[in-house]
Amino acid sequence: MAAAAPAEAYAGLKTELEEIASLSGIEGLLHWDQASMMPPGAQELRGKQMAALAGVVHARKTSVKLGELIAACGGAEADAAALGEGACEFDAANVRRAHEDYRRASRVPAEMAKREAELSAAGYAAWMKAREENDWPTFSPILKEWIALVRERCALVWPELPAYDAALSDYERGLTKERLDEIFPPIRDAVSALVSEVYAAAEEKGGPVALGARASVLAGEFDADKQAALSKEVALAMGFDEKFGRLDVSAHPFTGGAGPQDTRMTTRYKSEDLSEGLTGTIHETGHALYEQGRNAKYTGQPVSAAHSMGIHESQSLLWERMVALSPQFSEFLLPKLAASFGSHFDGVTPEQLHASFNLVKRPSLIRVEADELTYPLHVILRYELECGLMDGSIEVDDLPKLWNEKMEAMLGCVPESDSKGVLQDVHWSAGAIGYFPTYLLGAAYACQIFDYARSQLPGLEEELVKGEFSRLREWLRTNVHELGSKFDTADELLIAVTGEPLKPDAFIGYLTTKYRALYGLS
Amino acid sequence: MAAAAPAEAYAGLKTELEEIASLSGIEGLLHWDQASMMPPGAQELRGKQMAALAGVVHARKTSVKLGELIAACGGAEADAAALGEGACEFDAANVRRAHEDYRRASRVPAEMAKREAELSAAGYAAWMKAREENDWPTFSPILKEWIALVRERCALVWPELPAYDAALSDYERGLTKERLDEIFPPIRDAVSALVSEVYAAAEEKGGPVALGARASVLAGEFDADKQAALSKEVALAMGFDEKFGRLDVSAHPFTGGAGPQDTRMTTRYKSEDLSEGLTGTIHETGHALYEQGRNAKYTGQPVSAAHSMGIHESQSLLWERMVALSPQFSEFLLPKLAASFGSHFDGVTPEQLHASFNLVKRPSLIRVEADELTYPLHVILRYELECGLMDGSIEVDDLPKLWNEKMEAMLGCVPESDSKGVLQDVHWSAGAIGYFPTYLLGAAYACQIFDYARSQLPGLEEELVKGEFSRLREWLRTNVHELGSKFDTADELLIAVTGEPLKPDAFIGYLTTKYRALYGLS
Repeated sequence: MAAAAPAEAYAGLKTELEEIASLSGIEGLLHWDQASMMPPGAQELRGKQMAALAGVVHARKTSVKLGELIAACGGAEADAAALGEGACEFDAANVRRAHEDYRRASRVPAEMAKREAELSAAGYAAWMKAREENDWPTFSPILKEWIALVRERCALVWPELPAYDAALSDYERGLTKERLDEIFPPIRDAVSALVSEVYAAAEEKGGPVALGARASVLAGEFDADKQAALSKEVALAMGFDEKFGRLDVSAHPFTGGAGPQDTRMTTRYKSEDLSEGLTGTIHETGHALYEQGRNAKYTGQPVSAAHSMGIHESQSLLWERMVALSPQFSEFLLPKLAASFGSHFDGVTPEQLHASFNLVKRPSLIRVEADELTYPLHVILRYELECGLMDGSIEVDDLPKLWNEKMEAMLGCVPESDSKGVLQDVHWSAGAIGYFPTYLLGAAYACQIFDYARSQLPGLEEELVKGEFSRLREWLRTNVHELGSKFDTADELLIAVTGEPLKPDAFIGYLTTKYRALYGLS
Repeated sequence: MAAAAPAEAYAGLKTELEEIASLSGIEGLLHWDQASMMPPGAQELRGKQMAALAGVVHARKTSVKLGELIAACGGAEADAAALGEGACEFDAANVRRAHEDYRRASRVPAEMAKREAELSAAGYAAWMKAREENDWPTFSPILKEWIALVRERCALVWPELPAYDAALSDYERGLTKERLDEIFPPIRDAVSALVSEVYAAAEEKGGPVALGARASVLAGEFDADKQAALSKEVALAMGFDEKFGRLDVSAHPFTGGAGPQDTRMTTRYKSEDLSEGLTGTIHETGHALYEQGRNAKYTGQPVSAAHSMGIHESQSLLWERMVALSPQFSEFLLPKLAASFGSHFDGVTPEQLHASFNLVKRPSLIRVEADELTYPLHVILRYELECGLMDGSIEVDDLPKLWNEKMEAMLGCVPESDSKGVLQDVHWSAGAIGYFPTYLLGAAYACQIFDYARSQLPGLEEELVKGEFSRLREWLRTNVHELGSKFDTADELLIAVTGEPLKPDAFIGYLTTKYRALYGLS
């Protein structure tokens, strides 16, 4: 009898969770529609629709009924054996995920949620104004309020954790500052030194070896429709399934929708730059494949959802960087570019195309425009600053000065204004503290996962040259996508996938080998 | 003090109604998305999403809180003076509409709603099978169940009304069989006689005077993209506002979305037939203008919504028939057709184009393919049969025989099979009894409203020749669209708009004059 109660409760819990997922999926569709289809005049109405639906979803996510079902299933201590016949580790993890989500939603009082919503709105307005007018004091009071509010929320939801660990866990389950301090400093030191070497070599030689002083072959004038057609061809070759998704255009590319059966990605194309649209589509396709690859046995259940922001990013970056920015992909792509854009690619070599995809920018001031090599330093800079803000060792008022000092030290450049420095990102204006690390974690996960995949898939490089992506995709599906949120930490997932927890080695090794070769460093 | 309570309740009621409207609007968007954008594999998930949201909306529409607010505002006896400062007849009507909607939703027990949903699903499957296999007994048991169930629901929701009047009121507020029996029989007799005369004239002369034996100039091979571009040009000229709406393609054209700020219409184009796509777009634009023209002072309130199915149809048919099928519109359109489709229109006269738009079909067996002249008889036939089914004077088993007899009597033809006769429409399979009359009412309303509009807008015909639609649109906006659901019956609305309740005269006069001229009857 002791086991029967959780089994019955678990059946009820799954039904409730699937219904909540259905309603949340509608939120995803509304968001997609707003970005890609909605007529401009519907903005105000859409705000009301989203608010009404968010209220409904929040009520369901914090209902007494849901809490009781989760508790009856064992909550954080759920045991697979008790959850009914055929239940396995996925089911126990499913209850744990439900428990965490419930805790996160139900421990924040309505009054605090309201303050957060108001501070987000005020924060966005203040950030826009501060950035436009290059005036840090317009924004700094907001950030001070956010630090206090995030600390307060963390103490309510995860009182057993240090505040910054609790903040991290909203984006990367189970991640700690201790772990980041094992990963990020070696990356910072290695990459910062490598950037200096690359800059010196570029100065000496004019650019990467294959190009010299020649401009990127990806700059020019390229018909957007042809770009879109080629990008879609690549997305479909990667395995994006249009039966269960769409690819459209929006101002800010993203992948969303309503999960594996209805994955909607958007991208954009610039006529003067062939790189952004194509790599952007490949990036989003990586996200989309993760969504479409969810474990079908747990449709609508939290255990089937993405493990974390960082793991989601690892799937987009694996395809964008390990695949699209590889020399093999340039070999595959060049004839297609020549077919689409004619004489522009006359006489261009695969090496030149590859070098053009991988140009290191100098100076690298803006994170979202940064290349693959300098990007990690932008993340680490923000990480170091927000850690200090959260533990009180850094004052908000000192941030602009510290920002510029760190830029100088890591990247050898200083922004001409706070607008292009400490005010460049929107994240902190919305209280998203602990978010930035996931970008770099994603890149590091991607390297380690791809390294292991390559070891398991002999001949993979030759397949990439031919544009054959199916073995890699299926490997990722089985070894990453279908595992969903089974594990309590990304390290556990990495151990399951690659045999080891995350280490900085693969990422540092990848960047070092690649950029030494590209820039002819000895 | 007596007046203060309703005023306070009314403020709360409006907030609650607007939130329900926001959630219902999401249902409209999901429906649009399903028809026009959704990837095919998302069908099952979409069903779950719609069901989850429908559950949420139903709970809100039947909540005790809502019922109490409506009652505190006076319910069916709401008085404007009591609803607070500035409240007017619209506000009193708003409460009445809320009261009716609440009654309709809350008086149907969950068990009955479940039976209806199940019978709809079973009914659709049985109807498809019966039609495919030309086997009436496959479908007839479903119809028997529906008759019983509709009677039962009507008795619960509107116990004070005869069953068929109650059924009608679901589609056309305040409509009675008594009123229909004043309108439909004169139309039946006049149109049936006119059809006979037209058939005789067509036999004698080969077709309408302007064409003789020549085929329709609207048949041929027409590029669908060019059709779409031209149709959109006309929709925009009519005043469809893309800032607050979209026009897309779907298999079954409709107008939906989420009200005046987000009106989504869809249409389709056939390469072999220029008429359907163009008149279909104009038809949907008529619906869309009604939606976009709702009273902005009552956004999200039921009083701003369409009066009824019939009045909605009047707005689509006014533009489709009174405008697009007029000789003036053919004059306007011909040069545009020639510009889009070149030599096909060489030597074609406006009269020939007009005659092609208005060909009377013989035989006219299928309602949805029927022309404007024979269409009313299809509706009246169904009306007479469903009245008999509801009052018990007709047995379901006798329906095929009676169908064919009425076809013979009214339209001079008998379908070769029940599939093309009594089984042709989906409506009854979903229990939609009382729906068919609204199609014909819409046409009759449209004639009477347009007649009056013309009397108020001297020079309107000349404007139509020039493709100037703005005066007519603005007149409709002020005199029809913005009145929304202010009135308890369509007759009251017609009196407000045209000075008279609905009469059959305008419609009969319109058809008689038009088709006597087209077919050269003395």
